[in-house]
Order: sequence, then structure tokens, then C-alpha cells
Amino acid sequence: MIQANDPALRSWVEVPADSDFPIQNLPYGIFKTDYLEAGAGIAIGNFILDLTYLHENGFLDGLGLPAGVFNQLYLNDFIGLGKDVTSQVRQRTSELLRDDHDELRDNKPARELALIPMDEAEMLMPVNVPNYTDFYSSIEHATNVGTMFRDPDNALLPNWRHIPVGYHGRASSIIPSGVDIKRPQGQTKSPEAEAPTFGPSKRLDFELEMAFITGKQNGLGNAITTSEAEDYIFGFVLFNDWSARDIQVWEYVPLGPFLAKNFASSISPWVVTLEALEPFRVQGPEQNPPVLPYLQYQGKKNFDIQLQVFVQPGGGEENLVCTSNFKYMYWNMNQQLAHHTVNGCNVQVGDMYASGTISGPTPGSYGSMLELAWKGTKPLQLSDGSQRKFIEDGDTVIMRGFAEKDHTRIGFGEVRTKILPSGS
Amino acid sequence: MIQANDPALRSWVEVPADSDFPIQNLPYGIFKTDYLEAGAGIAIGNFILDLTYLHENGFLDGLGLPAGVFNQLYLNDFIGLGKDVTSQVRQRTSELLRDDHDELRDNKPARELALIPMDEAEMLMPVNVPNYTDFYSSIEHATNVGTMFRDPDNALLPNWRHIPVGYHGRASSIIPSGVDIKRPQGQTKSPEAEAPTFGPSKRLDFELEMAFITGKQNGLGNAITTSEAEDYIFGFVLFNDWSARDIQVWEYVPLGPFLAKNFASSISPWVVTLEALEPFRVQGPEQNPPVLPYLQYQGKKNFDIQLQVFVQPGGGEENLVCTSNFKYMYWNMNQQLAHHTVNGCNVQVGDMYASGTISGPTPGSYGSMLELAWKGTKPLQLSDGSQRKFIEDGDTVIMRGFAEKDHTRIGFGEVRTKILPSGS
Repeated sequence: MIQANDPALRSWVEVPADSDFPIQNLPYGIFKTDYLEAGAGIAIGNFILDLTYLHENGFLDGLGLPAGVFNQLYLNDFIGLGKDVTSQVRQRTSELLRDDHDELRDNKPARELALIPMDEAEMLMPVNVPNYTDFYSSIEHATNVGTMFRDPDNALLPNWRHIPVGYHGRASSIIPSGVDIKRPQGQTKSPEAEAPTFGPSKRLDFELEMAFITGKQNGLGNAITTSEAEDYIFGFVLFNDWSARDIQVWEYVPLGPFLAKNFASSISPWVVTLEALEPFRVQGPEQNPPVLPYLQYQGKKNFDIQLQVFVQPGGGEENLVCTSNFKYMYWNMNQQLAHHTVNGCNVQVGDMYASGTISGPTPGSYGSMLELAWKGTKPLQLSDGSQRKFIEDGDTVIMRGFAEKDHTRIGFGEVRTKILPSGS
Repeated sequence: MIQANDPALRSWVEVPADSDFPIQNLPYGIFKTDYLEAGAGIAIGNFILDLTYLHENGFLDGLGLPAGVFNQLYLNDFIGLGKDVTSQVRQRTSELLRDDHDELRDNKPARELALIPMDEAEMLMPVNVPNYTDFYSSIEHATNVGTMFRDPDNALLPNWRHIPVGYHGRASSIIPSGVDIKRPQGQTKSPEAEAPTFGPSKRLDFELEMAFITGKQNGLGNAITTSEAEDYIFGFVLFNDWSARDIQVWEYVPLGPFLAKNFASSISPWVVTLEALEPFRVQGPEQNPPVLPYLQYQGKKNFDIQLQVFVQPGGGEENLVCTSNFKYMYWNMNQQLAHHTVNGCNVQVGDMYASGTISGPTPGSYGSMLELAWKGTKPLQLSDGSQRKFIEDGDTVIMRGFAEKDHTRIGFGEVRTKILPSGS
């Protein structure tokens, strides 16, 4: 990967060849350092462009930004200003960073204050999440689960091709990359046991997902159509929907997953905007039978985003265990948002809507240990000689994602989470 | 109902004989008027005691209250101060209101500014709700549902007596009493149909519930025990968990209720504190088989609170359709909170935890139309000659609740919601 020759597509900030964050990306996040309190920034190469500094020093004048909008714990107030404003900030910061623009480039004192080395910063949650919904929109994942737990000949439930099935998750326990989690404890019951027992989950799993974040609210009682949906969608993060399979199987009938999921969900800290992903739109899979009119849509609503999952044992090296792609989704985000609001449900700024596990068509593209090791029957071999049916204490799970085309890489960075023993 | 002879149990504010709000209650809420912006108040008789006024004018000095804590859209900051502080505010306002205390009673200018007639105020949401969970804790309700939809001989699912079953609901669409809602639209499919169709729900139902509100956070990864639970519980409201039965039956397998529930949930606006409900503690039902150790508890954790549901057709009169009681709950709030956090899930200030439909042992005590009209087979007869299997457009559903003992009535007021036609 090299930066483009066109100076508008190249930054005066050094961007390493393998960086997720060239000038075409410009994702938003919340960071803090030892000497700067939490505030909003934009990733460029290995640096963070400090939006609070730019705003307070006149570099963002004329864009209609309220005082203090970046000097906050969350991006909600900023993204709630609407796409007219956030797009202008994107354009303006792109201008400030482009190679042939001298305003910041040649102002050494300002440049040194505005650019924070990433390794001096800690990334926090980008948004306060008022509501979190998890969909179940990968047909490969739903088919795999149905094959394992029900009937291989009728793997998909009757509603699956008619409804972008989803459920409400827990917003409070969504955490950013880098926050360790303890193995959850809970009730489990093996089929042969008389009664349930209590203890640490023995089947801790990841789920490879992406989530979109809304930047605009509708009112209660007002549906959002598939054609309006993108006006409500600000951007995307990687999403690890941690799951305790043994807790889940005992609790989830009839009201759905609860303690099996709500102990933690981990996200990548940089919000990649819909604008940055425009070049990577692809046609989604054909939907058969045809969907009801309120779920029909025009145009390319899937995205070609390459996804990877690595498992790193304590003290060991990273093992690539899954290579998938966001383009496989059967239901797209426009359909998800139209379905979610067709009954009048109201969306708020900062909400997260996760895709569900993103599995591809081949075994190496399955997005969970449950599928990769096929319910424990095909353990994965790691480079240190150990095997995995599920995730063990001391393991770190890392998810990465990027879109790539014409020598441009729009990356998400990573979401990295270490599992600590229960009760630690 | 008459006020007590003991002046400490009697207020100089006139409290009508049938009032929900004597001096022993003192619930908190958020109100606004034409000339006062939103802020916190306490109900007393037919008046609201304006806490912002009391605070700003020195009547609450010495209690460690931050400036502006009552002059807000929500109670979250106040209840987040902890029970040490909120209990002192309760004691101090009780003192200011008692019949033999002259400080406010005999200060006519202050008294007239501090007391707002309820009919001049609009009640808003009492808290901002970061997370909402709905339990399923009435054994009569779970048995009725299981009898209707599954096997009368095995009505309860295997996990029901081991787990306080619950699921995550939608926080954004929780609304206060008085806000009308439109009949939700959605996908439904009759068993004999080939494919689903889209349109207004034909089986709109209420669910009679109560919800507790948390006032203290635990950290992610830290469980709350049954004995610690009450330190986290600030108070209760009435909760109408609106449900579209026809949408629910098509969507809910395997991930639980979603659009059938998230179009609206309605609550009573006054938060009745745990302290006010102390005299009404009763022993809960015996739990058999015995529950796992983390769910065991000591003491009286159920509450004798009488509950009523009325259906009022457009232009008609109120019809009492259900008389139930909160004391019937199989799982109590201590167990619910201990279960919810045993995996490390974190609770936040302002969270709502609803009980699930509160049905009693007799048909007239069932807490939903589904049960009252037994899946449409036993329509309810209303006083205007019409019948109801479910809720119709133009109907208003009103829930009321109160605890009563020794001539003292601790009431919740009401939650009142009118159903408008779809698309109105």
C-alpha cells in the first residue's frame, strides 16, 4: 500500500504502507492522554488529529459547530448535529491534512499540538449507547446454527427469510477494545443432568460482527423507510458479541439470549463513516422469496469489508482463525433499520445496531468458535500446539477489518479483548 | 381514608381521603408547568412540592445537595447521590410538610411558591432510562401462557423455576402516562397462510407490570448479591408493557420478543420509594425446587400492592377488567437483580427492571387481555355493550396501584394511555 500520487489523496502526515487510516478514511473516536482530557479526534496514519484543539484555535470556523462540541466524553453531540455538519468537518479536516495544503502543514507549533501520537493515547468508547440491538442477518450463520441444533434439512426457521430477525441487547456492557473481561459465571444444565449447576462458563465464544451507529433520531411512531435509512446512519465499528454458549442454551427459551450475552460486547474505537465506505458498496445477495414492500430497496447496500479474527493464547502468538467479509450479509442495514422502526419504534443518536455473526460460505469464514470448531467436534489447532473448542482463560481475541481497492485501504483498526479467569 | 391523628403522620397540606399521596408516601417525579421549566417534585395530596424552589431557597441546606440537582429533566443525578442523601431529603421534606411543623406551613409566600397544584402541571418521564429489562416472574402468568400455547400438563418450561427468566427491552420507547400511542404495524402470519402479510396489529394487548428503578451502579464484572440488592433499588413505578400478540408469535422464535414490544411501554410518573413501601412487605411464595445458592434470600421481599386495570372505550366509562396484586410474584426483585448481575453485567442509575405480567390465581386477576379473554375465546363484556378480545382503537387503558394498611394508603397514581389508529 502506498499513498496516491494525487496530493488530494495523500497527506503530509506520514501514513505507513499498511495503515488503516489514510486520508480517505478519517474515522472519528474519543481519546485521552496523560495530559489531555477525553475529547474527539480523527485517526490519520499513526496519529490522532485533536478536534478540540482545531476547533478552539479557529481551524474549523464557519462550520456551525457549537462551543465545546468536541471536548466531551462521547461523540453523540457532534454526530447529532447531522450529516450536513459532520460532512463539512470531514471535508475541512481532509483539506487540512492533504499534502498540498499548507495551513496546518507549515504551522509547526499548531501541527505539533494538533497531532497526538496514537501510542500516547488511550481510546475510549466513541459514543454513549442509549440502545443496542443485535440482528441475526447472516444466512450462513443462521444456517450453521440451525444445522447444529435443529434439523439440517430445515435449518432456517420459517420467519428467517421474511424478517431481519433481531433482539435487544444490553447497552451498559459495551466496552472498547483493550478492556479485559472476566469469564462470566452462570447457570448451566447438561441435557442428562437433573438440575442446573452454577459456575464459570465452559463454552465462551466470540461472534464476529459489525455495528452501525445512528446519528439522527426519528420520533416515536414514525417509521424510517429503506430509502431514508442512510440519512440516519453515521458509521460503523467492529463488534465482538461475546457469548457464553452453555448459559445461552439453558436460558434462551422462550425470551431469547440474556445473561449469555450481556456480560460484555467489545467494539473497535474508531467510527468509520458511511462516506469513507462509499467506494466499497456491492450488491447484496438475492432475496428469495421476495420480501414485503417495506423491506424492498434500491441500489448497492452491502459493503465489501474484509474481516479477520485472531486468537492469541497467553504468552503466545496470534493465530488467524477466521477470514470473513461483511458483503455476505443477507439483510442489509437499510432493511434492518426499516424493519426496526416500521412499528413506530424510535431510534436515538448513538444507538448501536449490530449485524449478527458474519459467517461466509466456507468453514474458514465462520464467525464464531461454535461454528469454526463445529460444536466442539472439530477443535482448532493453534501454532503453540494447543487446541481450541472455545475461548480459554488468558486468550486474547482480536478482530480486524478493512476495505481495500485501488491501493486505498479503509481500515477499522482492531478490537482486542483478553479473557481473565472468573472471579479474578 | 382519613389522615392520622399523630401530627407527624399528618400534613398541613390538605390530603383528600382517597389520595394516593399522603405524607407517608412522598414519591418523586419530574413535572413542568406553563411557567416553570422541568424539574423535580414530590407529590403531596393534590399538590407537587417543588424541590428546585425548596433547594434554591435554603429549605434543604445541609443535606449535601449539589447546585442544580433538582432543576433537571430527569431524577438520575439526584437518585445517583445515593440513599444516604435521598433518605435525608425524604426526612426533611416530611418534616417540612408535617402538621406540627411551622417553617413552611406559616410562611405563606414560600408555601404558595413551593406547592404547585397537580392540575396545573404536566408529568414527564421521571428518569432517563439507560437500560431496560423485562422479567417474566409471575408463575400464574407463565403457566397461563404455557397452557394456552403449549402443553397444559407441562405449562412451565424446564428453566422457569430455576431462573428468573428475563430479556432486554427497548429503553427509547418508554413513555409516561398521558402519551397516546399509535397502533403498531408489522408482519404477521396466520398458521394457515403461506406467507406473512403487513398491516396494523389485530391483537394489541396490555401487560400489567411493576418496575423497579436502580439508583446505584456496580462496576462491570461485579455481581450484586440478594442481600445487597436493595441498596441498589430506589423505587417503583407501574409499568404497562404494551404487546402486539400477532406480531410476537411470528417473530419471537428463536431470539425473543422484538417489534411486538418495542413500539411503546407506558409508566406511571411518580417513583414510589422503597422506604415508603416498607410497611407492606410480605413473604413471597415458597420456591420449589429450592433455588441455587446465589438466588437464595432472607426476609420478606414481596410487597402487598393492589393493582387494577381499567379499559375505557372512546367516549365511554372506565371498566375494571383486572384486579391483581404485586405480592403474587414468584421471583422477587432481590433475586432478579442478583441473577441479572451474577455474570458481571453492570447496572446503571435510572435503569428499569420490570416484573413481567402480574397475574393472580383467579381469572379476574389475570394481567393481560390474552389471559383475561383466554386467547379470544372468552371476550370481556364492557358496560357500553361492546366486547373486547384485545384493545381497540380509541380505547384508553388505565392501570392503578396502591398499598393500604392501618388507614394509610401508599399509591402510585396511574398510567393512562390512549390507543390511536395506525398511521394517524
